[in-house]
Amino acid sequence: MVEPMVGNAVVGQAGGPTAVINQSLVGIIEEVEKYRHIRQLLGARHGVRGIINEQFYDLKRQPTNMLELVAQTPAAALGATRDRPDAEYCERIFKVFKKHDVRYFFYIGGNDSAETANIINKLAADSHYDLRIIHVPKTIDNDLLVTDHCPGYGSAARFVASAFIGDDLDNRALKGVKINILMGRRAGFLTAASILARQREDDGPHLVYLPERPFDIDQFVNDVREVHERIGRCLVAISEGIEDKDGKLWAERVFVLQQSNIEKDAFGNLQLSTGAGSLADYLAGTLRNRCKEIRRVRADTFGYLQRSFPAYTSSVDAWEARLVGQMGVSYSLDAEQNGSVALVRLPSTTYTIGTKLVPLSAVAPDHPPKTKVLPSEYINAAGNNVLNSFREYVGPLVGDLPKVGWFEQIAQL
Amino acid sequence: MVEPMVGNAVVGQAGGPTAVINQSLVGIIEEVEKYRHIRQLLGARHGVRGIINEQFYDLKRQPTNMLELVAQTPAAALGATRDRPDAEYCERIFKVFKKHDVRYFFYIGGNDSAETANIINKLAADSHYDLRIIHVPKTIDNDLLVTDHCPGYGSAARFVASAFIGDDLDNRALKGVKINILMGRRAGFLTAASILARQREDDGPHLVYLPERPFDIDQFVNDVREVHERIGRCLVAISEGIEDKDGKLWAERVFVLQQSNIEKDAFGNLQLSTGAGSLADYLAGTLRNRCKEIRRVRADTFGYLQRSFPAYTSSVDAWEARLVGQMGVSYSLDAEQNGSVALVRLPSTTYTIGTKLVPLSAVAPDHPPKTKVLPSEYINAAGNNVLNSFREYVGPLVGDLPKVGWFEQIAQL
Repeated sequence: MVEPMVGNAVVGQAGGPTAVINQSLVGIIEEVEKYRHIRQLLGARHGVRGIINEQFYDLKRQPTNMLELVAQTPAAALGATRDRPDAEYCERIFKVFKKHDVRYFFYIGGNDSAETANIINKLAADSHYDLRIIHVPKTIDNDLLVTDHCPGYGSAARFVASAFIGDDLDNRALKGVKINILMGRRAGFLTAASILARQREDDGPHLVYLPERPFDIDQFVNDVREVHERIGRCLVAISEGIEDKDGKLWAERVFVLQQSNIEKDAFGNLQLSTGAGSLADYLAGTLRNRCKEIRRVRADTFGYLQRSFPAYTSSVDAWEARLVGQMGVSYSLDAEQNGSVALVRLPSTTYTIGTKLVPLSAVAPDHPPKTKVLPSEYINAAGNNVLNSFREYVGPLVGDLPKVGWFEQIAQL
Repeated sequence: MVEPMVGNAVVGQAGGPTAVINQSLVGIIEEVEKYRHIRQLLGARHGVRGIINEQFYDLKRQPTNMLELVAQTPAAALGATRDRPDAEYCERIFKVFKKHDVRYFFYIGGNDSAETANIINKLAADSHYDLRIIHVPKTIDNDLLVTDHCPGYGSAARFVASAFIGDDLDNRALKGVKINILMGRRAGFLTAASILARQREDDGPHLVYLPERPFDIDQFVNDVREVHERIGRCLVAISEGIEDKDGKLWAERVFVLQQSNIEKDAFGNLQLSTGAGSLADYLAGTLRNRCKEIRRVRADTFGYLQRSFPAYTSSVDAWEARLVGQMGVSYSLDAEQNGSVALVRLPSTTYTIGTKLVPLSAVAPDHPPKTKVLPSEYINAAGNNVLNSFREYVGPLVGDLPKVGWFEQIAQL
């Protein structure tokens, strides 16, 4: 084994926050403390942007009692960014790295961050700058390649499944049709997690629409009508990323629909904007107009609550997020390559997880760029539901869910 | 004290569900068990509709281990209704009551249910039908007259405050403007609860718009711009019930705006519908168009999650919801009048609560019909924020909120 480089380390967070991304950060901070060759640990404020702006927290000088609190706090404690560095941006990063003798870079993020890490890795090699770069995975979308699943997903899935438990009860109490729009532009993993809410035979969601299958408005109306006729109500999970048969986002179609008209309106300077909120209202409105027999139609969009609701994380997810941070530091010392930390589900009767380091190019391939989608084996033939076999995959990541009580004895009058 | 009537009892639930409405139901079931003169306890399925349809659960014959589970389950376990009985509807209710010797009627609900109880009470007196009728309060809107606060509100407020803690962190991580639309058509109590999220000096929400004050779009744009210039971000809480200076709902204005145009659109039979989702998108779009200096604007609508999210209730709220159910039964035996159970905050250095029975006509006055709104003392002069003094009122109802951790030591490079 080669002696690890002596130098400083930078850690950054990027992309949309999650409920457990700070677990990974604290995992890195704790693990770095164990090794003397990493002298300083700099927390880049707002990801790569904090590097080029030389804005850092001194992560070895934080009050220790604060660290555990940070770990349990949702969203990115260092601040995040959506910057996607090009070659010139990377040159600025290297300039700062050289200036401060940074030899280790831990980047916590999703697909974009893996891509950023891959670019920086290649450019560092080209310019013969010795840099250990480790991508630490996080995303509620669960769409990273290679890894069994992504830290952050379990907690978001737990929120979604719990919300559907409550919303299904709500829909039982005041019957009608309820549509919920869920996060996930390209992958339906989070939307699919809604099926964990099913405890009884007739529990919702009764229909699930994913970005992986084309969304047809006529089929949708027929599907809902059929369920409503059968059980007197209908709970629907729809991904914000649903597309029509030509691959156009429905959210964009609704946007164009509004935009083109609103500009001409008497309100003049007022203008509608794209958004899942309008998609929800649009789908509800379509049902109201076409299905006069349905008395109540409501639609909600869960929005950012899915990724940043506090104090309701999955404990498995929180633990794994800490683990990938710790292992990221460990791999940076031992492994012979830079890479991304992946979770591996081990063959076992009980859920057991391991980690491995995989090449950045495998997680962020650029020809063609690729992300993971929900495997077809979990989607029904009609493309309007998720099969119960998906529970085996997602269940352990989410943990125990609230149990529901209900009455059974009907009065004999 | 007069001997209580011997007969059967009916309990029903009405209106929008809450996270703790079943606590009140179980409180009633438990308390009724103590008395022998109430022979049968019938749970009306879907409120008054279940009465006229003679659809009841036999609540004395439920498995005992299920009762506590039901108590912890959100939404109405009996099913709810939005039916508002008129005189004819009430005649049908009395017919069923007479048929089954019902002498006690417990109705768990908000303003509409208090009104229903008041109508039934008057008509029962008119037709000399001996009926004890007790309204048991619940509503996340917290807009019932007389009572200090309403069971259901504390848990919804806890959800909202927690969501804002997470969303404020999210907004710090990826800066910009974030708008959240909250429930409450006439009263701003739930929207106001968002201020519990403020732990640090610059924590959001930075602006709060309520139904109690007219909402002016130009003022809104200026307010947001000012906050964004000052701290580089802005988190906004807006009630779905905001009105313009003429008392017209903004949600309706946006609806009309869309509706009038969409009907002419090429999509033909597709039509947008009213909804808070569109209001959120509309406000975000307005900011994007008018404030080019603001890079990110997002908007979410919390929707039904506020009233039915499971396993995240306020324990004070859950306890009080149980209490008002128990006390409702107790009052039905002792008191000399029918009425509504009210919570009374006792003068004390620590939060202490009592109950009293108040006349139905005081809770549901019909000339003019009236509901409670957020007192002016809690609203700032500009009408765009809620004062911190409101914490004293709402804090004890919500309980402890998640604590947030953050970094402080900036690296000296």
